[in-house]
Amino acid sequence: MISHVRVRYAETDQMGVVYYANYLVWMEVGRVEYCKSVGFSYEEMERADGIFLAVAEARCRYLYPARFDQDVTIETTLSDAHARMVSFAYEIRSDGRKLATGETKHVFVGRDLKPVRLPKKYLAHFGINGGAPLPR
Amino acid sequence: MISHVRVRYAETDQMGVVYYANYLVWMEVGRVEYCKSVGFSYEEMERADGIFLAVAEARCRYLYPARFDQDVTIETTLSDAHARMVSFAYEIRSDGRKLATGETKHVFVGRDLKPVRLPKKYLAHFGINGGAPLPR
Amino acid sequence: MISHVRVRYAETDQMGVVYYANYLVWMEVGRVEYCKSVGFSYEEMERADGIFLAVAEARCRYLYPARFDQDVTIETTLSDAHARMVSFAYEIRSDGRKLATGETKHVFVGRDLKPVRLPKKYLAHFGINGGAPLPR
Amino acid sequence: MISHVRVRYAETDQMGVVYYANYLVWMEVGRVEYCKSVGFSYEEMERADGIFLAVAEARCRYLYPARFDQDVTIETTLSDAHARMVSFAYEIRSDGRKLATGETKHVFVGRDLKPVRLPKKYLAHFGINGGAPLPR
Repeated sequence: MISHVRVRYAETDQMGVVYYANYLVWMEVGRVEYCKSVGFSYEEMERADGIFLAVAEARCRYLYPARFDQDVTIETTLSDAHARMVSFAYEIRSDGRKLATGETKHVFVGRDLKPVRLPKKYLAHFGINGGAPLPR
Repeated sequence: MISHVRVRYAETDQMGVVYYANYLVWMEVGRVEYCKSVGFSYEEMERADGIFLAVAEARCRYLYPARFDQDVTIETTLSDAHARMVSFAYEIRSDGRKLATGETKHVFVGRDLKPVRLPKKYLAHFGINGGAPLPR
Repeated sequence: MISHVRVRYAETDQMGVVYYANYLVWMEVGRVEYCKSVGFSYEEMERADGIFLAVAEARCRYLYPARFDQDVTIETTLSDAHARMVSFAYEIRSDGRKLATGETKHVFVGRDLKPVRLPKKYLAHFGINGGAPLPR
Repeated sequence: MISHVRVRYAETDQMGVVYYANYLVWMEVGRVEYCKSVGFSYEEMERADGIFLAVAEARCRYLYPARFDQDVTIETTLSDAHARMVSFAYEIRSDGRKLATGETKHVFVGRDLKPVRLPKKYLAHFGINGGAPLPR
């Protein structure tokens, strides 16, 4: 799944490049669109089922700076999934150049932020209990 | 009520100064501390009573740029208050220089974001029904 | 000029709606795209000519909350322009509903953040010295 | 070196807790204060010497959510340093509970963002060429 963001002025810092924390925001954009691409809405899972994806770990390697007004692509892939957690990998590019790579690991939690098992109806979306994760 | 923030690198942009939207974040810091200074906790009002301060209007005039690592002060005053809304005014300074002035206007809302009247126990904190606003 | 943003999770706050300062970021998205639509690149004006648009004033009226994952449109219009300043107006909508209206006023500054006159080659883009602002 | 931040409303998201990217902003607050604590100003190194700390890698493990208005401490330690790079480790706590741990790795770069060796006058601050890093 490939997502696009246009670098906002707000995302730059006085070094003249994108501030490092904003790459994690772009990863969020990527995984929300990934969820849609496999057929379910993260927004609806939260609202209708009270299931949230709490971040357990995030990592980013910065290879080349992103600059204001660039068109940036985020390629999101599912790297691991169980009934209790899911991991995503990201490759962030612009103008044919790799800017950054990242990973996030999430646990499914309820409204009280306590861990829960992902309800059955969502399992297939993540390729769980149904063989290999869906290729994207 | 005077609040302090230290300018974060994250708050700057490629112009080398603080990005304009961040002044509204500082105003939030100012009014949260203002609420504490008049004897009540905004956090508790939300959690215990389900009363939120929804922003109806915000305005900022930028006079002089703020820069990374500066110590910035926000002077917050209550400019108007009724049982249904409250307005704050802000003066943002650093090194004896006025950087910006601003105002925000808020309506009290419940968890459903529908307007409500402020419960009686909070009225006095805003100087409502009890004469002039408390001097700060 | 109509711009689109998809509401990011990062842009929400614990009230469950978009945090008020983020509307100013969307206004920036709107005016950068407005500049492109009238034929010049804000990014290039900064880099090649050292001309920046410093914000002098910003204002936003919040009518209805924006929520995660909504498709939001920002309609940007030029409301005033001289050789030394420019003003934009914004109308922010989603699902056919007006969420907010705003205005920003900017002065042209050089790399030292001192006010400058806009170079002649840019005047026409803002409809200055050439009659009425371009209708958008 | 222990730094303090008060959780801002702007930093929360609709899950009711601090959005994950904001922990990286807090790490920045921690390392800027760390630099001051060992006797030099990051702001001055940038301005006077044109040396920047470009982030090469960032990682965060999230153990327990941070909430609005909490007083959060960031303990920053120098974990590695050479003439070309420096690494920091962070422990983020509130109310006696560990919220998160993180690491960042940085390379020294010039104004053109090309890697440089740290000038001699700064080496001692990072405990380079002078034995073990300064205990903090």
